[in-house]
Amino acid sequence: MKKLLSLVLLLSFSILMADEGMYPISEIHRLNLKAKGLKIDSKQLYNPNGTSLIDAIVNIGGCSGAFVTAQGLILTNHHCAFGAVQAASTKENDYVTDGFLARTRADEIPARGLTVRITESYRDVSKEVLSVLTDKMDLAERTKAIERKMKEIVAETEKKHPGKRAEVSEMFAGASYVLFVYTFLRDVRLVYVPPRSIGEFGGENDNWVWPRHTGDFAFLRAYAAPDGSPAEYSPTNVPYKPKTFLKVNPQGVDEGDFVFILGYPGRTFRHQTSHFLAYEENYRMPYIANLYEWQISVMQQFGEKDREVALKHDARIKSLANVMKNFRGKLQGLQRLQLVAKKQEEEKALQQFILSDPNRKATYGTVLEEIGKVYAEMTDRVESEMILGNLLQSSVALNAAYTVWEAAIERKKPDLERQEKYMDRNFAMTKENVRAALLNYYEPTDKTFLSELLLQAAKLPENQRIPAVDALLSSSDAERDIDRFIERVFARTRCTDPNETMQLFDKSLEESEKINDALVEFAKALVPTFQRLRETQQRRAGALNRLSALLTDVKRQYLKTDFVPDANRTLRLTYGYIRGYSPADATYYSPITTLKGVIEKTTGEEPYNTPQKIIDLYRQKDFGKFKHPKLNDVPVALLYNLDTTGGNSGSPLINANGELVGVNFDRAFEATINDFAWSESYSRSIAVDIRYVLWVTQKFAGAQWLLDEMGAK
Amino acid sequence: MKKLLSLVLLLSFSILMADEGMYPISEIHRLNLKAKGLKIDSKQLYNPNGTSLIDAIVNIGGCSGAFVTAQGLILTNHHCAFGAVQAASTKENDYVTDGFLARTRADEIPARGLTVRITESYRDVSKEVLSVLTDKMDLAERTKAIERKMKEIVAETEKKHPGKRAEVSEMFAGASYVLFVYTFLRDVRLVYVPPRSIGEFGGENDNWVWPRHTGDFAFLRAYAAPDGSPAEYSPTNVPYKPKTFLKVNPQGVDEGDFVFILGYPGRTFRHQTSHFLAYEENYRMPYIANLYEWQISVMQQFGEKDREVALKHDARIKSLANVMKNFRGKLQGLQRLQLVAKKQEEEKALQQFILSDPNRKATYGTVLEEIGKVYAEMTDRVESEMILGNLLQSSVALNAAYTVWEAAIERKKPDLERQEKYMDRNFAMTKENVRAALLNYYEPTDKTFLSELLLQAAKLPENQRIPAVDALLSSSDAERDIDRFIERVFARTRCTDPNETMQLFDKSLEESEKINDALVEFAKALVPTFQRLRETQQRRAGALNRLSALLTDVKRQYLKTDFVPDANRTLRLTYGYIRGYSPADATYYSPITTLKGVIEKTTGEEPYNTPQKIIDLYRQKDFGKFKHPKLNDVPVALLYNLDTTGGNSGSPLINANGELVGVNFDRAFEATINDFAWSESYSRSIAVDIRYVLWVTQKFAGAQWLLDEMGAK
Repeated sequence: MKKLLSLVLLLSFSILMADEGMYPISEIHRLNLKAKGLKIDSKQLYNPNGTSLIDAIVNIGGCSGAFVTAQGLILTNHHCAFGAVQAASTKENDYVTDGFLARTRADEIPARGLTVRITESYRDVSKEVLSVLTDKMDLAERTKAIERKMKEIVAETEKKHPGKRAEVSEMFAGASYVLFVYTFLRDVRLVYVPPRSIGEFGGENDNWVWPRHTGDFAFLRAYAAPDGSPAEYSPTNVPYKPKTFLKVNPQGVDEGDFVFILGYPGRTFRHQTSHFLAYEENYRMPYIANLYEWQISVMQQFGEKDREVALKHDARIKSLANVMKNFRGKLQGLQRLQLVAKKQEEEKALQQFILSDPNRKATYGTVLEEIGKVYAEMTDRVESEMILGNLLQSSVALNAAYTVWEAAIERKKPDLERQEKYMDRNFAMTKENVRAALLNYYEPTDKTFLSELLLQAAKLPENQRIPAVDALLSSSDAERDIDRFIERVFARTRCTDPNETMQLFDKSLEESEKINDALVEFAKALVPTFQRLRETQQRRAGALNRLSALLTDVKRQYLKTDFVPDANRTLRLTYGYIRGYSPADATYYSPITTLKGVIEKTTGEEPYNTPQKIIDLYRQKDFGKFKHPKLNDVPVALLYNLDTTGGNSGSPLINANGELVGVNFDRAFEATINDFAWSESYSRSIAVDIRYVLWVTQKFAGAQWLLDEMGAK
Repeated sequence: MKKLLSLVLLLSFSILMADEGMYPISEIHRLNLKAKGLKIDSKQLYNPNGTSLIDAIVNIGGCSGAFVTAQGLILTNHHCAFGAVQAASTKENDYVTDGFLARTRADEIPARGLTVRITESYRDVSKEVLSVLTDKMDLAERTKAIERKMKEIVAETEKKHPGKRAEVSEMFAGASYVLFVYTFLRDVRLVYVPPRSIGEFGGENDNWVWPRHTGDFAFLRAYAAPDGSPAEYSPTNVPYKPKTFLKVNPQGVDEGDFVFILGYPGRTFRHQTSHFLAYEENYRMPYIANLYEWQISVMQQFGEKDREVALKHDARIKSLANVMKNFRGKLQGLQRLQLVAKKQEEEKALQQFILSDPNRKATYGTVLEEIGKVYAEMTDRVESEMILGNLLQSSVALNAAYTVWEAAIERKKPDLERQEKYMDRNFAMTKENVRAALLNYYEPTDKTFLSELLLQAAKLPENQRIPAVDALLSSSDAERDIDRFIERVFARTRCTDPNETMQLFDKSLEESEKINDALVEFAKALVPTFQRLRETQQRRAGALNRLSALLTDVKRQYLKTDFVPDANRTLRLTYGYIRGYSPADATYYSPITTLKGVIEKTTGEEPYNTPQKIIDLYRQKDFGKFKHPKLNDVPVALLYNLDTTGGNSGSPLINANGELVGVNFDRAFEATINDFAWSESYSRSIAVDIRYVLWVTQKFAGAQWLLDEMGAK
């Protein structure tokens, strides 16, 4: 990993406790990790001028992972590979249910939809990005100018480094921007994925729950061209040779041990205002949690009658349920901790500080108020914006039709002026996403969801109406109008078929205008509404971008302590200790679960349907080398006070010696609120213990050769 | 408490651990409680020749309780007083919701349906009871003879001690019988009952759950005639003066402390065979749990629309839900512990012991097999017997009609030959039960339940048909036939009205035969079926009575250790320690909950709708003298490894000095299996802490005078 330029990302704001922090790798050398428990030199962890552990960390799909051998073997989560396993499954070869094991390299099959990124270098580009702003710009222009500059930097960089991916990431809104360059691998294959009854043991019941007993791991392998360069899938490709890999340690860790995680956390919102939190608590999260809950129940009902339909909905249910439960946890946390009220008090104190000095008052006096106005406007229009925000993703077919049409418009523009998803570098993935969704298309679900959203739209107040929806309401009976409309358009569209839709993507704008397709027509009618929304959002983003920079600035003056940027899908480090916690009065959770707990939970029915072989191995106490000396059992999952969020899934949990001892995959329920506020008392994350990974792989799957490849003696 | 005759109840069988045991009071002197932690002399606890703590213990309704002042003040559970509170409530004075506090003695109102019994003496009557058996008797005759003898002894005793209640209790089936004499108080009044949001905090969610935060306590007062003798309610009655009372200790107890309980545990089944357990696991408990679950959902649906209907169903839902959750817990425990398989192994070993000696073989060789045959017969007829066993209690009106008719038949017989409930000493209570049920009669519920049971009956296999049901099936559409039948009979019955039904009870058999009442007609048609079932059950009881005595005998020879009789609603002692436990892998529950936990659980909605005053008191840290020194908060509930079951509700939890420190009210979920098997690792019972009782009474209710009366300084 080569460091191009040093940069300072730490600003100063933290009312929270010691171990909070998803540190950008540029900050690793400032942390004094030796004092915390690290036993290797921090250069071994991160060395901008040579090889270090950092180089073994991958960003895979929306997850993280690590190379664990010189042959490109990657250890990540079962749930990160789930979509690919589902895509590879058929009724005859149900890898989701039965698991998948490649007995030879030749048997390793493509993990559809998964690509791997490895952070190669980074550079502070704040000055460049912000240089484009002028005082004359209105707020929407401001947003567009920043977005365009970021795209330009990316384009230049990718031109200079063919085959690499580049990305400019906003660290502090309106204040700092970093260009990251990534190695990009497109040939990823399935090696070993345990059956769902292990990899997803506990299912949605146990999701976001400790104590946990899920074997949420999967082995994949990255491939490259015979010359070692990144390449599309080809049978002649060979295993990718990473710069380095993490050594797995079959002895694992114990309670109290120092551990750290390197990975790609997605999004946190700790620097946001009370206005943001109130909007999330009162509007956005309840709306989405309720919508998803209903959508899940609809899909489950359709699936009950037909196993094939159930399989189609599988990954989608999983993903909606995950968000829903996360939001419910957050909502509970917001209420329990009275977070909005606390933020308001902080902001009141900050405002007093601002007003206490005439210069500060002049510069920052109205910042909080102006942020409040943006959210007040969002609140005024929340009903229609919630519907528009969820309309396309609710109907797979409408989303396909809309994407077809929007692509035709956007692809006419010069590459840099397009929305991100239609840029040349992203368009193949955009099409693949549409295609993959249509492969799981099920018409009754699509119709039911679209009908519900349109019905919601039909009830919107006068000032928030959606013209395309109004146009289809011809009588006083909205429900009947919508039913008829849906019957009509679904009968006259090609956008429910993956292949036909792919053909539509090949058309020019002129050709697209002539497509005779009822759903595309409806999509066309929606475009002005979505364009207006997009512009509104750009204007708000421009305002918030400007205001956030000011807010960060004055907070730094006020609080005089360091703080780290919110997570933004860039490589971060977090460290801490294997540690239990008290989730409630008179209750204590210890930080290591065992196979005994798997057996305790086992009912013989989903989601607790442990394979008989695991039960037998447990009864025979056939623990191999993977027994915890004190617990006298195979450790299954680990709990620790590290600071993680979504995107950290699959991250290696690493011990003081830099060895892999677990695979991070979840948080405890109380820690869903992590994204808004971290606390030593309840912020706990969860890994599958490396001993369980190795025990399952060796004793259950019989794949001794994988342990040999990892050198796990 | 006067001991008439010493007796030995301990036999020898226990594969279980140290602290198991609901000891009959006759055994207290053998226990060496000093070594366990008792600091008072065991004579102070139990003195057959003088006054002791035993004399402060009451049996109240199906619960236990204790006198806590010389003025007859009784401390028991909120849920034990619930029915009486409900009966005293109106729409205007909703004591269930708001609680009830008598500001003066004159304001103390009757606790309808509650009576108090105090154990006065006991005597072993095994010889007398068993003397009636002859070899010539068939099995049903055997049961009848024993029952009749028990009734005779009771009748003689009550004649000798006017105003007292007598009862002969079977200690070991077919082997030992004890006559208990009870002081019987019929004027019981409500003194202080907290609002449901305290007394039933957590509702069904938290029922059978630890950690617990329920203020499940109530103060009642027993009254007597001015001369101190037991009497029916009268405004001229005066507070009853108990022989002694328990001193409450406002300092409470701490983790690890020795505690004991005196109370009236209802039923345990630890000496039963694998056949019994399998029948419970496979048939009876699942049937009832499912039936009750459905009945609860029906009642809840009706109640949603109408608050008055909801009030009518309140106590019934509570009681069904309590049983249902208990059964679910037991079913889970049976499966998790594989209890049937374990019992089978024990029985196999016992059988080998039996067969190893020719004499033993001759006497006991077929005992287990014969017990198995009884259960095999029960299993063969389980469908119809489950329906018959639940038919009457499902329909309040049908039960009234059936009781009216059966009373007319039974009351013609000499008193000692009647079924218990129709004997002169019990008939008033029987009528009152019917009347109380009819006061909460709600026709749609009654019709729905009866319809379901009749529909089940319509589907019975050929060999289990119920003639009275067959008679109403006139077409091939059973559902329609049953609907019509129900519409017809409910339109032509007086048994839905409490007053009219009471009038029917006054009729002679001759008059009753002329009652023109469609529901009574149906009841008449059912009588032969129920009579046949009763005879079958007497025959089985006779067989099991004989076989159980033999089994107990040979087990004693085999195991050579002491064991105590199963609970049977007689006064028992259990002792142990305030102690937490691990309910599951990586989870530990500590044994004292606090007010903080109440606030944590509070959502503002039922069942977690804590009164604002409690929240305010907590925020002001206004804990008075009731703060736990280490937890720095008011203790709310206590957990301990004592051996309790239903009936122990309301039992005083007593410290090493003989002072009341809590009121027992529940068990942890894992401990529902207690009734079948006790274990140190999961058998935990729950009390409300005396500090919470006193804090709520003083700070929340403002009833300082009650603390003064208790001398709780």
